[in-house]
Amino acid sequence: MGLTYQMKMKIPFDMADMNGHIKLPDVILLSLQVSGMQSIELGVSDKAILEDYNLVWIIAEYDIEVVRLPRFAEEITIETEALSYNRLFCYRRFTIYNEAGQELIHMMATFVLMDRDSRKVHAVEPEIVAPYQSDFDKKLIRGPKYESLEEPISKDYHVRFYDLDMNGHVNNSKYLDWIFEVMGADFLTHYIPKKINLKYVKEVRPGGVITSAVERTGLESKHEITSDGVINAQAIITWQEIKKV
Amino acid sequence: MGLTYQMKMKIPFDMADMNGHIKLPDVILLSLQVSGMQSIELGVSDKAILEDYNLVWIIAEYDIEVVRLPRFAEEITIETEALSYNRLFCYRRFTIYNEAGQELIHMMATFVLMDRDSRKVHAVEPEIVAPYQSDFDKKLIRGPKYESLEEPISKDYHVRFYDLDMNGHVNNSKYLDWIFEVMGADFLTHYIPKKINLKYVKEVRPGGVITSAVERTGLESKHEITSDGVINAQAIITWQEIKKV
Repeated sequence: MGLTYQMKMKIPFDMADMNGHIKLPDVILLSLQVSGMQSIELGVSDKAILEDYNLVWIIAEYDIEVVRLPRFAEEITIETEALSYNRLFCYRRFTIYNEAGQELIHMMATFVLMDRDSRKVHAVEPEIVAPYQSDFDKKLIRGPKYESLEEPISKDYHVRFYDLDMNGHVNNSKYLDWIFEVMGADFLTHYIPKKINLKYVKEVRPGGVITSAVERTGLESKHEITSDGVINAQAIITWQEIKKV
Repeated sequence: MGLTYQMKMKIPFDMADMNGHIKLPDVILLSLQVSGMQSIELGVSDKAILEDYNLVWIIAEYDIEVVRLPRFAEEITIETEALSYNRLFCYRRFTIYNEAGQELIHMMATFVLMDRDSRKVHAVEPEIVAPYQSDFDKKLIRGPKYESLEEPISKDYHVRFYDLDMNGHVNNSKYLDWIFEVMGADFLTHYIPKKINLKYVKEVRPGGVITSAVERTGLESKHEITSDGVINAQAIITWQEIKKV
């Protein structure tokens, strides 16, 4: 168990989708803001570890469970905690609570340190993770097995200038955007995710085109983001029908 | 002159583009958050005028002047003031200041009330605008003449599910996204707008495809967003080279 950090906020209008729910890519962006704020508070900001170690944090995998999605103007608390780490991986929890303290979203994220220049994974530096007071634990948390798709439906998307962050990388949240968009507006008006497993395999390169492929069987969908013939990300989503309020 | 309202904030990582500048569509989103907060404070929130009058505010035109763009982690203050109104139009100023109080961005926005069901423009209701303490002024502020394009370059974009807001409308900021994107990553890495005139002509319908067309001569570009054979928005942009810091 490590130190926790919280941020309270109200869902603004421009984060709400047609159903009045927060857009899931914004959940990713907000949670990364919260862990970023914790890192600043603990003196191991992204800026500091880049300058001192030439390292950046990247996300390798997400495991997200959605009870329900926060709504426009709802007040939520986003809590994060660095749970444990091993030689290569750091496991972090994000929990979104409503005003009454009930859990709405639970996310487990696997973080990895990457060398900024070689773009290769770097072993966890004890000094970088010490301030979070999380435990060393040899045990690996493994995601599901992502099988390849057999007869997918797919759509192509251009990687846009505004999809890129300051480092010229496609933001993690963007992948979820492509994964959802391929489901079509009609489906997304009636269903929201119940569980998402998402694995980042290889960074999407700026400037090109990606293919978002999906194979859906009932309330389960399997996803692949590919470009230049390689897999960039894979996901498995279980969906739930939107409850009328 | 009307009441002013301010919001202070730091530019978060996910609002910064490859140059480390705030993305201009985010400037639009943030400014609308600020005017929305002022409306709530004055008891004439978007929610209230929808419930009481079945009316919604829409933007008809923008006139934006950029001295320079705020950068990642920079602290800015966004100030807004409802300046004046006439029978149909309300004119509002947004000014973005840096920490030293210097003006970075100056925006004039023309707001119009629209009936939610008929989607038609509605005359300004004195009770709705009174709380802002702006003056009635018959004088119309006219934007430039937007000429049609002769030999444009263009790109098509799908209107995505997440481009739609809670009312099923494409957010105003999205049009700027399409307008910039067609300039290409190389151009956008070297130039930022100095002045933008943007006119919303007709709402983009959800679900379809829009065409973003541009004709550039030196540092001036003329833009058209069209769909189903009609013009949705027009813009004229003067660009400036990014100053190396």
